[in-house]
Amino acid sequence: MKFLAGLRHLSRSTRSFSGVSSFRASELEIEITKNPLPKPDPNNLVFGHQFSDHMLEIDWSKNNGWGTPKINPLRNFSMHPAAKVFHYAVELFEGLKAYRGEDNIIRLFRPDKNMARMKATAVRSHLPDFEGQELIECIKRLISVDKEWVPHSTSSTLYIRPTLMGTDNHLGVSPPTEAKLFVITGPVGPYYPTGFKPISLLADPNFVRAWEGGCGSFKMGCNYAPTILLQSEAAKKHNCQQILWLYGKEEQLTEVGTMNIFMMWKNEEGGNNLSKIKKYLDIITLWPIIK
Amino acid sequence: MKFLAGLRHLSRSTRSFSGVSSFRASELEIEITKNPLPKPDPNNLVFGHQFSDHMLEIDWSKNNGWGTPKINPLRNFSMHPAAKVFHYAVELFEGLKAYRGEDNIIRLFRPDKNMARMKATAVRSHLPDFEGQELIECIKRLISVDKEWVPHSTSSTLYIRPTLMGTDNHLGVSPPTEAKLFVITGPVGPYYPTGFKPISLLADPNFVRAWEGGCGSFKMGCNYAPTILLQSEAAKKHNCQQILWLYGKEEQLTEVGTMNIFMMWKNEEGGNNLSKIKKYLDIITLWPIIK
Repeated sequence: MKFLAGLRHLSRSTRSFSGVSSFRASELEIEITKNPLPKPDPNNLVFGHQFSDHMLEIDWSKNNGWGTPKINPLRNFSMHPAAKVFHYAVELFEGLKAYRGEDNIIRLFRPDKNMARMKATAVRSHLPDFEGQELIECIKRLISVDKEWVPHSTSSTLYIRPTLMGTDNHLGVSPPTEAKLFVITGPVGPYYPTGFKPISLLADPNFVRAWEGGCGSFKMGCNYAPTILLQSEAAKKHNCQQILWLYGKEEQLTEVGTMNIFMMWKNEEGGNNLSKIKKYLDIITLWPIIK
Repeated sequence: MKFLAGLRHLSRSTRSFSGVSSFRASELEIEITKNPLPKPDPNNLVFGHQFSDHMLEIDWSKNNGWGTPKINPLRNFSMHPAAKVFHYAVELFEGLKAYRGEDNIIRLFRPDKNMARMKATAVRSHLPDFEGQELIECIKRLISVDKEWVPHSTSSTLYIRPTLMGTDNHLGVSPPTEAKLFVITGPVGPYYPTGFKPISLLADPNFVRAWEGGCGSFKMGCNYAPTILLQSEAAKKHNCQQILWLYGKEEQLTEVGTMNIFMMWKNEEGGNNLSKIKKYLDIITLWPIIK
């Protein structure tokens, strides 16, 4: 258990990561698109369907380490059919947002927390580590290039999706020898089509998303694939938008669909108490950015 | 539990799948490479590092269903950075082999079993279903095109890797609206570098690969990503090639690294007994092709 505990510790600390080999934001190369797209109506956005004009790409190889970070026009990847990401889900992602304030200044919300979680997930996935602050600086440049894609709206934001995946063309379950870190962005409204209205949740102890000894506390792609069918079934058969994931004999709450849970209840004296999630759930739930 | 039980039933039956919408092997289009590669020495093969000249590709979309199956020269995919497979591990694979007999006839080993498992995994992954016999016919054509890639050797074979993945460029954890089924092949020797010699296994109950309520009984990419770091640690710290996965308080055996377990022990009378794996492990372990 010491090894797993060590991994958990990683996800709570940024200091552990100092001195890792990394790309450098100061070396960024930027190519601006010749064909900028029109911006969509901020009142009519579907989550994850619109993308900004540019992306960030940084390649890594076991032999040469991190390459030069590049901001390019959004474009397709050319990838070998044996790429590890297609077969063994060697992939992780993060999700954060850029907000345009009423003062017209664009702000990120705690990107250092996303970076710490992303780096811990990279270690857990046997993907290459990097310096979080360098990626934050690259992301800031990306947003600055695409600043008009940050909606002029108080209900919409720019969603930022950093991703890291194994790209070497070797079958066999083994550590990746090549990888690609990339960041795409796009304007989004609320995640659920119901907007900011309440959603209905299916709580069924037979569906288990994360478990002790697994990797539920890391933001790996593999935690999501198994949930898609169950989520569809919840919607079709029970008219629920999402699943409230339960764990163990006591049916402890772990996560809602794709996000953390924040609870509040009235105590016996009529006051408000924040729930105390039992300590060991820390092992299997995603480290929250908002807490 | 009924729903999960239903899914398990799927993986044990091919009859359930009759009448699904499918591509047709009779519509296969074939383009032969103009630049065939030299075949490698069959005594010097590394698993998953060499690929045959051709591949099979079949695209699917929610609106148009399955497209025409195509055998093309092996080539890179062009994929949008938001493709579902890069973010949420919407992917599955199979692995089977073609053997060249001493009579020079090439044979597949129980491909119908692989197809049944692949189809059940497609259902579990919310990826499109198809008719297994049609894919077997397409694979036979692919092997016939690349028949000289099937090693003339009694210790090497042609490994066949069918894969199915979500390709639509929509972020958000939701069912894929586009998918790609493809098959690549390549000549292989033994999976482990030790060849057919025994391997050492690390058995540590703190590492859990599959659990009740999860998807360990399906061949989804998501079952493999979490194992890569642990496998490396097992090798580095304990000099073991693989992990013997355990489950639950009784530390029941579930799987070895990337494969099923087959056990034999001497009973008290000195005879040989095959082990009886407890019935409920059926829920969390991969359906074996050899049994």
